[in-house]
Amino acid sequence: MPVPVDPTFRPVSGFDLPRFAGIPTFMRLPHVGLDDPRLGQVDIGLIGAPWDGGTTNRPGPRHAPRQMRDASTMIRAENGITGIRPFEIANVADLGDVGPNPADLQDSLARMTAFYARVREAGVLPLTAGGDHLCSLPILRALAADGPLGMIHFDSHTDLFHSYFGGTMFTHGTPFRRAVEEGLLDPRRVVQIGIRGSAYDREDRDFARAVGIRIIPIEEFHARPLEDVMAEARAIAGQGATYVSYDIDFVDPAFAPGTGTPEVGGPNSWQALSVARLLEGVDIVGADLVEVSPPFDPSGGTAYLGVSIMFEILCVMAARIAARR
Amino acid sequence: MPVPVDPTFRPVSGFDLPRFAGIPTFMRLPHVGLDDPRLGQVDIGLIGAPWDGGTTNRPGPRHAPRQMRDASTMIRAENGITGIRPFEIANVADLGDVGPNPADLQDSLARMTAFYARVREAGVLPLTAGGDHLCSLPILRALAADGPLGMIHFDSHTDLFHSYFGGTMFTHGTPFRRAVEEGLLDPRRVVQIGIRGSAYDREDRDFARAVGIRIIPIEEFHARPLEDVMAEARAIAGQGATYVSYDIDFVDPAFAPGTGTPEVGGPNSWQALSVARLLEGVDIVGADLVEVSPPFDPSGGTAYLGVSIMFEILCVMAARIAARR
Amino acid sequence: MPVPVDPTFRPVSGFDLPRFAGIPTFMRLPHVGLDDPRLGQVDIGLIGAPWDGGTTNRPGPRHAPRQMRDASTMIRAENGITGIRPFEIANVADLGDVGPNPADLQDSLARMTAFYARVREAGVLPLTAGGDHLCSLPILRALAADGPLGMIHFDSHTDLFHSYFGGTMFTHGTPFRRAVEEGLLDPRRVVQIGIRGSAYDREDRDFARAVGIRIIPIEEFHARPLEDVMAEARAIAGQGATYVSYDIDFVDPAFAPGTGTPEVGGPNSWQALSVARLLEGVDIVGADLVEVSPPFDPSGGTAYLGVSIMFEILCVMAARIAARR
Amino acid sequence: MPVPVDPTFRPVSGFDLPRFAGIPTFMRLPHVGLDDPRLGQVDIGLIGAPWDGGTTNRPGPRHAPRQMRDASTMIRAENGITGIRPFEIANVADLGDVGPNPADLQDSLARMTAFYARVREAGVLPLTAGGDHLCSLPILRALAADGPLGMIHFDSHTDLFHSYFGGTMFTHGTPFRRAVEEGLLDPRRVVQIGIRGSAYDREDRDFARAVGIRIIPIEEFHARPLEDVMAEARAIAGQGATYVSYDIDFVDPAFAPGTGTPEVGGPNSWQALSVARLLEGVDIVGADLVEVSPPFDPSGGTAYLGVSIMFEILCVMAARIAARR
Amino acid sequence: MPVPVDPTFRPVSGFDLPRFAGIPTFMRLPHVGLDDPRLGQVDIGLIGAPWDGGTTNRPGPRHAPRQMRDASTMIRAENGITGIRPFEIANVADLGDVGPNPADLQDSLARMTAFYARVREAGVLPLTAGGDHLCSLPILRALAADGPLGMIHFDSHTDLFHSYFGGTMFTHGTPFRRAVEEGLLDPRRVVQIGIRGSAYDREDRDFARAVGIRIIPIEEFHARPLEDVMAEARAIAGQGATYVSYDIDFVDPAFAPGTGTPEVGGPNSWQALSVARLLEGVDIVGADLVEVSPPFDPSGGTAYLGVSIMFEILCVMAARIAARR
Amino acid sequence: MPVPVDPTFRPVSGFDLPRFAGIPTFMRLPHVGLDDPRLGQVDIGLIGAPWDGGTTNRPGPRHAPRQMRDASTMIRAENGITGIRPFEIANVADLGDVGPNPADLQDSLARMTAFYARVREAGVLPLTAGGDHLCSLPILRALAADGPLGMIHFDSHTDLFHSYFGGTMFTHGTPFRRAVEEGLLDPRRVVQIGIRGSAYDREDRDFARAVGIRIIPIEEFHARPLEDVMAEARAIAGQGATYVSYDIDFVDPAFAPGTGTPEVGGPNSWQALSVARLLEGVDIVGADLVEVSPPFDPSGGTAYLGVSIMFEILCVMAARIAARR
Repeated sequence: MPVPVDPTFRPVSGFDLPRFAGIPTFMRLPHVGLDDPRLGQVDIGLIGAPWDGGTTNRPGPRHAPRQMRDASTMIRAENGITGIRPFEIANVADLGDVGPNPADLQDSLARMTAFYARVREAGVLPLTAGGDHLCSLPILRALAADGPLGMIHFDSHTDLFHSYFGGTMFTHGTPFRRAVEEGLLDPRRVVQIGIRGSAYDREDRDFARAVGIRIIPIEEFHARPLEDVMAEARAIAGQGATYVSYDIDFVDPAFAPGTGTPEVGGPNSWQALSVARLLEGVDIVGADLVEVSPPFDPSGGTAYLGVSIMFEILCVMAARIAARR
Repeated sequence: MPVPVDPTFRPVSGFDLPRFAGIPTFMRLPHVGLDDPRLGQVDIGLIGAPWDGGTTNRPGPRHAPRQMRDASTMIRAENGITGIRPFEIANVADLGDVGPNPADLQDSLARMTAFYARVREAGVLPLTAGGDHLCSLPILRALAADGPLGMIHFDSHTDLFHSYFGGTMFTHGTPFRRAVEEGLLDPRRVVQIGIRGSAYDREDRDFARAVGIRIIPIEEFHARPLEDVMAEARAIAGQGATYVSYDIDFVDPAFAPGTGTPEVGGPNSWQALSVARLLEGVDIVGADLVEVSPPFDPSGGTAYLGVSIMFEILCVMAARIAARR
Repeated sequence: MPVPVDPTFRPVSGFDLPRFAGIPTFMRLPHVGLDDPRLGQVDIGLIGAPWDGGTTNRPGPRHAPRQMRDASTMIRAENGITGIRPFEIANVADLGDVGPNPADLQDSLARMTAFYARVREAGVLPLTAGGDHLCSLPILRALAADGPLGMIHFDSHTDLFHSYFGGTMFTHGTPFRRAVEEGLLDPRRVVQIGIRGSAYDREDRDFARAVGIRIIPIEEFHARPLEDVMAEARAIAGQGATYVSYDIDFVDPAFAPGTGTPEVGGPNSWQALSVARLLEGVDIVGADLVEVSPPFDPSGGTAYLGVSIMFEILCVMAARIAARR
Repeated sequence: MPVPVDPTFRPVSGFDLPRFAGIPTFMRLPHVGLDDPRLGQVDIGLIGAPWDGGTTNRPGPRHAPRQMRDASTMIRAENGITGIRPFEIANVADLGDVGPNPADLQDSLARMTAFYARVREAGVLPLTAGGDHLCSLPILRALAADGPLGMIHFDSHTDLFHSYFGGTMFTHGTPFRRAVEEGLLDPRRVVQIGIRGSAYDREDRDFARAVGIRIIPIEEFHARPLEDVMAEARAIAGQGATYVSYDIDFVDPAFAPGTGTPEVGGPNSWQALSVARLLEGVDIVGADLVEVSPPFDPSGGTAYLGVSIMFEILCVMAARIAARR
Repeated sequence: MPVPVDPTFRPVSGFDLPRFAGIPTFMRLPHVGLDDPRLGQVDIGLIGAPWDGGTTNRPGPRHAPRQMRDASTMIRAENGITGIRPFEIANVADLGDVGPNPADLQDSLARMTAFYARVREAGVLPLTAGGDHLCSLPILRALAADGPLGMIHFDSHTDLFHSYFGGTMFTHGTPFRRAVEEGLLDPRRVVQIGIRGSAYDREDRDFARAVGIRIIPIEEFHARPLEDVMAEARAIAGQGATYVSYDIDFVDPAFAPGTGTPEVGGPNSWQALSVARLLEGVDIVGADLVEVSPPFDPSGGTAYLGVSIMFEILCVMAARIAARR
Repeated sequence: MPVPVDPTFRPVSGFDLPRFAGIPTFMRLPHVGLDDPRLGQVDIGLIGAPWDGGTTNRPGPRHAPRQMRDASTMIRAENGITGIRPFEIANVADLGDVGPNPADLQDSLARMTAFYARVREAGVLPLTAGGDHLCSLPILRALAADGPLGMIHFDSHTDLFHSYFGGTMFTHGTPFRRAVEEGLLDPRRVVQIGIRGSAYDREDRDFARAVGIRIIPIEEFHARPLEDVMAEARAIAGQGATYVSYDIDFVDPAFAPGTGTPEVGGPNSWQALSVARLLEGVDIVGADLVEVSPPFDPSGGTAYLGVSIMFEILCVMAARIAARR
């Protein structure tokens, strides 16, 4: 596993500079913008998507990347359980934020797709801190250029609705409906885990059934062993290129209060980390952690859980990259 | 199940008006005051009891109905697990708040009993958002007019003490002692679930044993399957008219910090919802969710958990009403 | 002045029902929706505009109407300084919220203009709790149907910019540029008071000078007597129909922290109230209090200052209505 | 002025033990309970009155003494402006808390009167941290045993109402009405400073006028020099025994947000301290600082301002005691 | 078990004085300073160590003893599960705070060791509320005067690092490395439970393995029954004198957010209490609960969990003392 | 004034990238570390000093640079009052943070002096965001290499004490005593403005008088026109090289609650900005803004006021640089 990795991409250690010091980049990694000549060397790019224009309820995720960068300075070099040291087996960097237009939804979607298209062209796998869940759509538009992807999706909501407010097609409740319609996702390779809460109607779940998306609702999640649920999820995604979308409201709001549409009765933090760790072996071509809303958790606890989950996903991605070299 | 229900009583949908908009009534239902001619059509009335004059420690529940109405705008039309759509099988309305006298305890008790007597006369089943736990006493005085009720009681405290501060008989630690003494409850049909925390003495538990109240303490709750605990609870309540009293401090304070006398080591939110769902089949003639204290949780997370539990209870009540039609 | 007023429109008194009790409407007034037959009797309508789609920085004002209704239950019947009792000299009601589309800016503008057009047709003077400052534009579109209005504008920003983010014409930094361009405001009858903070450039101020808008910057405000500043403001607005737009960020953030783009060095709360009181005699045909952002002040102190200012404006409006009868 | 004072009553210095360390007593003074043999040596007793049973709106002042003791550990030995070192010229001690009955209003009043009667018998001048404003009534009942007192009263409300909620005579809005009726206060020697806010009606002010109480409303306070206002106040109180009652809501809520019934537009902290300092020469036989409500300001800033004002009053009281020796 | 105990050491009951009233000592016990003649009668001393000079990340635990004393007034007389009434079987008192020097690390260590040496000489078993984890080192220096102790250590970190920042040997990440090096702990009688989180490197775990310290990492903790884990822990500690060190960050941050270096994925509050209860039978010669950081949880929820855990440890210590009499 | 300035040093505009987006550097300027080849071009360097090891009371300023960078993204290009556009007349950059050792006071001082010596050698004028006030000492050690400096010092405390805790010479209460003793400051060119609060004793003020430091206490500050106070301050500092040290606790805690040792009764935000603006013409060779403590103001309002003051100082510094070219 000790593959030679460019020392440029080593994070600053807390033994050298205290964790509260320094300009905060994701996991204290170097900032490598899209115009930086080092971009080509990057294997995995941590990206902020500070945009919440798709929010139908309580806004705030536009502030998440900044709070999550701050919280991420608490992340160290090694996964305590798997022993993976991602920064030594893959080149990881902070690519900065995609610049949105807070007052124009379609312009924001276009800016994001263009940004991620450049990331993809550079051969970098993106791991994004949203933003609201509509951010996943422009990312998928860039990443699925060669064909539909599979998806493992952790959430309390399906985000498969047709439209809101009398015909509005683009909100954080519709991204995966659009993604299926646009051929960005292969619904038979999509699984949604943790769905719960009171419901408007069954329109979203009817659509899922019709196109072959597998939903694992919360009562099933609580009733089955975690390892079993994730084995099924990996089987659904299969060997193909897969996107991982992780909405922080998958987790119970006691553990992640900083989000706009919480649903009580969810998994705890150990389960939240474990499902990410159990993605091992999946061919992750991109991932996101969305819907962290700092105004609803100024303490940063939700952001810290979010980046801890991102670190688990990062370890899985890095291990696969190392294994393939 | 699709019983014809008056469309007057349909809540506003979040697809039509965003959940943060509009004057907040419970679950976005119409406001039907006691003088409203529509009162007679109502099956289940959601009521606020903004009073905490019985509090011996940290006050605040007088503010709960307002915060809970706000949080309740996040509740949608269908129970995600049971599929029950309560607003389509029963007429549910917000009856407003009972008006207390914050500077006169006995006057407040009298006002509440009078209010609930009118509710009962109108044939409406009350589902109350307290208020401190002493609110349950005047409600029981109104509802038990025809004889003692059974009770399923979720709490970390028994609220069975004789008196406080050298002879004060009416506090939020004494309501069910009074209710048994006054013949409002049949102690052999009463079960208390989740009792825990350090104790003054055993005077309350000695009383329970003497009169036949069944206490399921927290260590037993954690050791037994939830379904088993609730099966016993339903058996104790039996087929008769039963009151459900749910103190939010039943739940662990990580999930419900906004309360005045928290006790650590309690159930999580999934368990908190599940026990309410497992009331299915009980003949609930009234219920309350008490002791939410907004000053100790300005975020509203506790209130949101509280109204989510109320929604579970509401679904059980509505299903029974529909089944009886 | 003691004109007979319909007792329907009397607010609930805190001597009858404690201020924390009851479903919160603005100033505890009756809710009179646009379809309510009583609408025609209303002189002044309190309206919530829960929309912040024009925000370029920190969102949140969509939540303001609800928090402001809650805070407004602290407002009593009489102005302590002027002695005006507005609810006895004019029919005032809560008209509810205009329903926005959080994911579609232009649709939201259209919905708001349509709502206020109906209000205007009913002969009701609107006093609005925003929402971000872009809300003023659709209101002006409805109110200025008969010709341009004057405006007295309290703010730390001019909101006169041409565009943002490479051509976006509609944000909370542009409403009055648009309003002048669209002929909704007569710039020579517009005064902006309290402008301060660091600046991008002078494009907004150059526009003001070019069209004849008078800006009273903060250093001038602090140097002159308040009465003198407001005498000039009233003179600029003149005898014609005038709109009053009050951005809460006019006030120093120590007094009003709950806002998205605070600028330090502003007026205190006594000054904030006094300038509103000194609108006496202006022909106010509509007014707003915008940019209160609850997520940045969960305590509600900002909302309470906001509704206190609204009460001052309301007293001025009511006194004028009474005087004209 | 350097009168020999018992070193027993010297506070712990922050140069010896950091201010955050140690069991918090008021101003780090020794705790001298009513049964302590040292009580007879005490000149001025700092007392907590943790009771808010008279609150008609938002509760919380029952928690104030504890938070104020904590904040008071920031107070040092010398008044920075007057140079008075109170602990060297008078024996000052923390007498602990009067024990209330949170569920019985009349019992609480009786307990308080009994406690302060003992304090008075011991020859100790009480300086109280409330509690809500109704606490002043039982204190006055004990202190005015020999005849009516004068009073200098800082507040945004008169607290002179007859009754609430249809006849409730004892609330935090009525203490001074009762005190005048009971002959505890000489109304012609009473002045109320800072009165403001919207009003229910003029019943309180009519009463004040009828009995000869002088009200200095906020608009007059802001218009006159502070020294002038306080000279008038001292003249009204005259040479006789005078009580000082300071409601923290006298201060603008930006400076004192932690209170239950804030009124915007009030004095700033410099003014709040200065009016207390300008009590110099008044024959203060007792004083209180009431209505600090910790649940509405967990930061403790309001409590800190409260104890800073108490320190100013304490310096005035100590200087007079020293001058008389 | 009803051994005669000095009534001097009975805590104040909440039935006599409400829990929010009175100067807060630990568990409402009498304050017995080191110079108090009653010290010799004390069996177990509750001590505050308000010092966080060893913190490498977020400071704050210097404020913990005060907040924990406040929270501890919620603790009552009897353990709800075991039935132990510690204050009736052992003399327990609040010994006050050890006075640190916030600007001199070595001086603080020396002050603490001297303080605990006096406690030990008086025959008092110390139960400490920290402070950061470096506080454990000077305590061990005092307690291990007769030879190395065993230790049961609950934490998410090993605190076994050699040094920080290029050679700094004394931080809250190094106390037990120093303690082993100094012969204060017998590493073969040391067990560390709950270790988790991302890691700098494996230097700490290599040291543990080399000297024979047993680490039970979180994945093993979650996989085994609690009773089994604690049986192993008791076996490792054996019959000899044992220190118990409990870092509040052992618990998941949803339950204990007020700490400086949280690690997600930890035990819940029921587990947190149960492991302490399962110390039954261990010969505890001293214990601490450290790293509560009030600035990161102003609500006091973390402090309350902390003192609830201390109460469980206290019950174990008291039962053993009673059994030995 | 339009001197050609390197466009490298232009901040990112909020018209291009929303203010909440992007990795936060001070005022959105480029990060130029000490090893960056561009360092030689920098005129003014913004530096974070994340260290609070000198704090004797409530810690937290170690977190200030990060929160202040975040808040500083709200600062725009032009001073609204003076019209100065600092980034167009001087090369300004973010030099990053000086790396402290949180567990070793003397090592931290040495690291800071070494860092600032390099800054000085590069010809860069440092403008620092502390850290606690002891940070000023190592900065002065580096900047006063050629002889003592004058100082204009805004604070509520003199920070001139000899020692704490029985001989500890280095705390945030002693830096300027040390600086005078070490010959870093010329006391006759030092003025301290805003001193207030209760006092331990007069030892600090006696020292000031003895060496010729001018103290302008708060009562004098409030009594004189601001312009007059600052004219005197400029006259004291004279034409020589001068350091500006600004403790945020100079400002009243209502405006700046996020600090460790607040003193009530201070200046408001308008005064706080104005005194900085009135430094115009002083030969500032370095400046700091210290004692912002994020844990005591998570909202960031204090940090925002702090960076707004820094912007005023920056404009003065840049104007002088431009004038000299």
